[in-house]
Amino acid sequence: MSQTGQFIVIEGLEGAGKSSAVELVHNIITAEVGHEPVCTREPGGTPLAEKIRDLVKIAEPNDPLCDEAECLLFYAARTQLITNVIKPALAKGQWVLGDRHNLSSLAYQGGGRGLMPLVKAISDASLHGFKPDLTLYLDIEPSLGLQRASQRGALDRIEKQHIAFFERARETFLQFAAQDSSIIVIDASQTMEKVHQDIRAELTKRLLLVSK
Amino acid sequence: MSQTGQFIVIEGLEGAGKSSAVELVHNIITAEVGHEPVCTREPGGTPLAEKIRDLVKIAEPNDPLCDEAECLLFYAARTQLITNVIKPALAKGQWVLGDRHNLSSLAYQGGGRGLMPLVKAISDASLHGFKPDLTLYLDIEPSLGLQRASQRGALDRIEKQHIAFFERARETFLQFAAQDSSIIVIDASQTMEKVHQDIRAELTKRLLLVSK
Repeated sequence: MSQTGQFIVIEGLEGAGKSSAVELVHNIITAEVGHEPVCTREPGGTPLAEKIRDLVKIAEPNDPLCDEAECLLFYAARTQLITNVIKPALAKGQWVLGDRHNLSSLAYQGGGRGLMPLVKAISDASLHGFKPDLTLYLDIEPSLGLQRASQRGALDRIEKQHIAFFERARETFLQFAAQDSSIIVIDASQTMEKVHQDIRAELTKRLLLVSK
Repeated sequence: MSQTGQFIVIEGLEGAGKSSAVELVHNIITAEVGHEPVCTREPGGTPLAEKIRDLVKIAEPNDPLCDEAECLLFYAARTQLITNVIKPALAKGQWVLGDRHNLSSLAYQGGGRGLMPLVKAISDASLHGFKPDLTLYLDIEPSLGLQRASQRGALDRIEKQHIAFFERARETFLQFAAQDSSIIVIDASQTMEKVHQDIRAELTKRLLLVSK
């Protein structure tokens, strides 16, 4: 349909339904664009970035990850992914589908942990303005999301945060969405059928825009 | 001698004689202050920071470390070390002796790789003005230093850079020293005896200053 690669990102709190949304968007892009998108996840998505992901996910009881190091590790993984995967794919006209990107850092570390000046400074210094063409933010009440997430297994270090952390993260997601027309809020508390219908509608708008 | 912990750092290009300088300073502090300093090395010095060191030191042929990720990883290791080792030690009145610190990032990534705006932005964002009380920079011609370094074994990813990289790094070390009275230049091309004599003299000045 289009020769212009687009970077589409799915964002949302734990249990918002990101995985099934990623699958849906993958299928829509493949059908409409004519080739599969390059799929990424963050933190991770390159051999080195996956090693960084392990460092962030696993708590070291005798060497607790400080706020600054956590933030810097996320951006190290992100810049590696952008440089070695996302930008090369876009340059070849491929579409890229991201499971989380920069907005997660702004929401979780910036909003959730109250480190917005640190996160914004590091984001500005390292990303040089690079951002997704479209972000679909799956919005859900943290209590409902965590209830869903806990049903699929043990929670990791970040998922074990207090509920207030996720409330602040959600507020930040919504604040950014209110200021940036490339971030679309999808009501993820609806039935999966309705959520997917909304995602399909937003993506169709994007595809029409790009094909013009 | 003094109850005020000080953070002393040894900096220098490969082959400048950092290791023997660290040993000397360790012995002087132990003798004069009355207890051993906490010794750190960078990148590294905490369990997590040592894992980050491994990521930076080992080249991944299929996923080359991008400039931004390299810089962010160095600062992730550094903030972890400052938060979990250096600051707690200083708060207890202990002296801390660092084998490299922030000046290495400024010299190697900032000067050597020409990424000064990136390095400075990340340094400012993550260190919040924290810096050593005294830095002893062992100055040496890169050609002489690398000749010495190559005699002690295989060179790592960073040591394999072109000589011009080290020339730019050296120039940056000297520029920062010219602007900051807490950075002392030691002529490391002298005999080891004379180098150690100069280090001892500078450290004695510092000890006298602190004991006042």
